Amino acid sequence: MNDVFVGIDLGATNIKIGCFDSDLKLLGKTSVPANENIRPSDAVEEIGSATEEFLGKKQICSDAIRAVGVGSTGQFDLSRGFMLSNPNLKLFQNVPLADMLSRRFGRPVVLENDGNAACYGEYALGAGKGLDNMVFFTLGTGIGSGIILDGKLVHGAADNAAELGHMIIYPDGRKCGCGQKGCVEAYASASSTARRAAEAVKSAPQSTLKKVLDEKGSITCKDVFDHARAGDDLAKEITDGTARALAILCVNMLHTTEPARIIFSGGMIAAGPMLLDRIKYFFDEQIWTLKKEAVEICFATLGEDAGIIGAAALAKQQLKG
Amino acid sequence: MNDVFVGIDLGATNIKIGCFDSDLKLLGKTSVPANENIRPSDAVEEIGSATEEFLGKKQICSDAIRAVGVGSTGQFDLSRGFMLSNPNLKLFQNVPLADMLSRRFGRPVVLENDGNAACYGEYALGAGKGLDNMVFFTLGTGIGSGIILDGKLVHGAADNAAELGHMIIYPDGRKCGCGQKGCVEAYASASSTARRAAEAVKSAPQSTLKKVLDEKGSITCKDVFDHARAGDDLAKEITDGTARALAILCVNMLHTTEPARIIFSGGMIAAGPMLLDRIKYFFDEQIWTLKKEAVEICFATLGEDAGIIGAAALAKQQLKG
Repeated sequence: MNDVFVGIDLGATNIKIGCFDSDLKLLGKTSVPANENIRPSDAVEEIGSATEEFLGKKQICSDAIRAVGVGSTGQFDLSRGFMLSNPNLKLFQNVPLADMLSRRFGRPVVLENDGNAACYGEYALGAGKGLDNMVFFTLGTGIGSGIILDGKLVHGAADNAAELGHMIIYPDGRKCGCGQKGCVEAYASASSTARRAAEAVKSAPQSTLKKVLDEKGSITCKDVFDHARAGDDLAKEITDGTARALAILCVNMLHTTEPARIIFSGGMIAAGPMLLDRIKYFFDEQIWTLKKEAVEICFATLGEDAGIIGAAALAKQQLKG
Repeated sequence: MNDVFVGIDLGATNIKIGCFDSDLKLLGKTSVPANENIRPSDAVEEIGSATEEFLGKKQICSDAIRAVGVGSTGQFDLSRGFMLSNPNLKLFQNVPLADMLSRRFGRPVVLENDGNAACYGEYALGAGKGLDNMVFFTLGTGIGSGIILDGKLVHGAADNAAELGHMIIYPDGRKCGCGQKGCVEAYASASSTARRAAEAVKSAPQSTLKKVLDEKGSITCKDVFDHARAGDDLAKEITDGTARALAILCVNMLHTTEPARIIFSGGMIAAGPMLLDRIKYFFDEQIWTLKKEAVEICFATLGEDAGIIGAAALAKQQLKG
């Protein structure tokens, strides 16, 4: 019987479950629906049955499961395996989630925040493979992140480390949802990029984005990138604002934990080389001349599976101790 | 025979040598003069003889030395124990300094950059004692720094980590000596604080700093803090600029490695509570409202001995290692 590792991505509307062999090769995925009112005990039971059902179909005995990893948004006490709160799952307040899942599966369970889990996925199998010092960003509605140092995720004094999107780079700048001003996230997330475009288009009626706003009533980040690619000046300027904020974040992280590679993931990287090249351009423009560190800035390779892969990789890693 | 650990602070004009017992209690200090043209082999020999002479006077046999630690400014390949370059010691180019000292002492030698060594000193015996996650800044002509994470110094991919004074917080801001614009160091080091005051006084002739500039031909950072304490508005404004830049650095580090304590050291902390209180004030003003981490911002306690204490502590730690 070959070992199986389970990686879970606990989302707001969908709980993704991946089953992996001991080389972290994906055996297959399943999922269960979620909603903001799902009870922790119900979620745990549904995760358990869905996993068993999936393995059954593959004619794999659930005894083959060696360990389980879970990534989720929320606040945690990781050493105790508690989810303290979750903005999307209202009933997950101070829940001993690792213990509950461990009882259900009869196996060790490791809990991790979703940014860290995806970071660990890229480290284990993706764009950061083989690199013991890396930094990971996921660019979506917000900016998630993770730091690997000497092969381990950085958790900090109380599991609040690696909130890198909230690094302040424009003091007195744009208001961020976190309560700070001038965070990277207030400029460079998908929603901030879209918001900056919608604001700027008011005083740039010649922009092709004007028509988008008039017709659709709103502008998305994808619109901005599409119109930048098509040559619209305002869209290019907004894209550059995003790329520049991300580049400064890269400079600042180079001077902090000195990663060998900085990896961007998330919906926004669909913009492709246009975005990556501009991040690199502004990085080269901003970085010091004192010495030349060999950092590489690139895109992630695992896509949306990074979370379940990372959760499974952490489960496997935890078994090793 | 009790164990002795030697901690060395390799400065530009003076090489400080401290001898410590196994509890890192200082047995005593000695030093040898240095200059920018000192040859590495001569420096090593002089360090060796000065240490032996000092121990001889204390009637301690040099065989009691168990390990040696060295902190220095410069560029390093720490795992190989090489000093690659040193802006103050011209002949220290690609020098296997750890090996050379190890041959001279017949004992293991650990090399570390000076900011990290002082950081480790505060961690081992000073303001960071007992805290496995901390960040350390030394405020002088420049801004040195170190990060302790899970009880270990952060070195990064190629020993260039923790150059935190070069975090960019004001893009397109003041030019820094490192070639970047808007680094914290370009605002908040002692020399940058003095420089900002000298510039600002030109358009504020009512400031009491004007008289200092006219009489002495220059303004020091100490002048700025003294006049701020005495109530001069311009001096208070310049002090606030320094405190605010340091506070933003604290916010950014909280979101990065989440230290339990952030410790400031160096000549500038002689300013006392006036400076510390303003750093805390701006930290509280800038930090997010999303959650409340329990970080403490304080001053270092070991003074100028932090470097030799840290070097000796690293030597002791390496033996355990």
